[in-house]
Amino acid sequence: MDDKLKVVKIGGQVIDDAQALQSFLIAFSKIPGKKILVHGGGKLATRMSKLLGVEVTMQEGRRITTDENLKIVTMVYAGLINKQICALLQSQGCNAIGLSGADADCIQSTKRKPTPVDYGWVGDVNAVSTDNISLFLENGITPVFCAITHDGEGQLLNTNADTVAAEVAIATSQQYDTDLLYCFEKAGVLTDVDDELSVIPQIDQQDYQRLKLKGIVQKGMIPKLDNCFYALDHEVSNVYIGNTEVITPHASTAYTQIV
Amino acid sequence: MDDKLKVVKIGGQVIDDAQALQSFLIAFSKIPGKKILVHGGGKLATRMSKLLGVEVTMQEGRRITTDENLKIVTMVYAGLINKQICALLQSQGCNAIGLSGADADCIQSTKRKPTPVDYGWVGDVNAVSTDNISLFLENGITPVFCAITHDGEGQLLNTNADTVAAEVAIATSQQYDTDLLYCFEKAGVLTDVDDELSVIPQIDQQDYQRLKLKGIVQKGMIPKLDNCFYALDHEVSNVYIGNTEVITPHASTAYTQIV
Repeated sequence: MDDKLKVVKIGGQVIDDAQALQSFLIAFSKIPGKKILVHGGGKLATRMSKLLGVEVTMQEGRRITTDENLKIVTMVYAGLINKQICALLQSQGCNAIGLSGADADCIQSTKRKPTPVDYGWVGDVNAVSTDNISLFLENGITPVFCAITHDGEGQLLNTNADTVAAEVAIATSQQYDTDLLYCFEKAGVLTDVDDELSVIPQIDQQDYQRLKLKGIVQKGMIPKLDNCFYALDHEVSNVYIGNTEVITPHASTAYTQIV
Repeated sequence: MDDKLKVVKIGGQVIDDAQALQSFLIAFSKIPGKKILVHGGGKLATRMSKLLGVEVTMQEGRRITTDENLKIVTMVYAGLINKQICALLQSQGCNAIGLSGADADCIQSTKRKPTPVDYGWVGDVNAVSTDNISLFLENGITPVFCAITHDGEGQLLNTNADTVAAEVAIATSQQYDTDLLYCFEKAGVLTDVDDELSVIPQIDQQDYQRLKLKGIVQKGMIPKLDNCFYALDHEVSNVYIGNTEVITPHASTAYTQIV
């Protein structure tokens, strides 16, 4: 399995800053070989909800997805953000294709049970169609996934973008030597959240448990790191967390590798 | 060229009625062989604009597309409508893939000149990538196009859905024996707009000019019929206009064939 694949996830901070997004997409388009992009967009969805007068309720950092919220995230993630990213990548010579999980049946999910918390139209991934994803990759097409999936029975479902990235990386690991890279607003996992120079270069499961106990790793970092270890435990070759530099690191780039 | 392809365009009237849309998509999914769907969505985009307090200006039935209007049509066409259609088709066993023109570089366009009317971010199609469309068709994937295209330089452009359907049909005619079917709210071209039984079974270019002079064909029917004749003049095998029954006509189905 010599064929390398990079699965890159970008979050809201990059998407919200037109210039940062453009710089990132130029760098992404230059990654040699096969690659997949997964994007979030929660901040923009929340702003659109406010404009439309639709209430947004978050529970443990996750969006409670009512009928109206689902329409908004579908519009914002699968429409506005996804197509703008694809058009920008095309302008850089990267033959991007924007996809939700419903497109070519790429990602099927199941609506989450309403207990203990009823998250509404939220789906947990249960199958990734590697046949179609590899059809694209083998033909020089770069999939760009938003975090909308479907249940196979006509229902779209809102899904966590970090999880989509992990599941896509795990599924494609059956065919490709896959690296998973999470790009977010920090340079990596930090010992001091206010000090960008305090990046921890490597974290293993033991370190992770210790950092959680100490409260150094908390809040949104916990599900993110859970996704990292989950991917690593399921045949993904390497998992990294960093800022956008992590996709084309130079000698001085700091990032965290999950080992 | 034995391989048949049907390119079907549906408009706002069907999209706006959840039950009509579902019935149509069930029928569409049963069309044997290769098929492509192209959809509009202007009515929903206009409603969303009102909700967001964004003004909509139409000129000769075409939307003046400002920055804000472009965001809205991208959200509504490429996001909400396109993904709902794909999820519904998937539930009927049709392996749909939702596409804008930016996706896999399927449809490139050029921003329309601002004179005599400045339509804003509106694009006229200048290239359809049949390579990628046929890659999908040959692998059992059904393209579902919204009417958003791109200029190859990072800019999305709003494009008339009837024109997208005609251009896709013309391009795919190089490889497939292609029929183009326009589904709209009437049973076909009518001699009396209030009488659904007055469908004209066949119209040729001479009839068309006569009907225009008499004022029987007017308003939105003129660009639609122009698209029909344009497609017919560019190697598309058959062109039909009718209501949704036209995609799977039974003995008593009325429709207009352009000859």
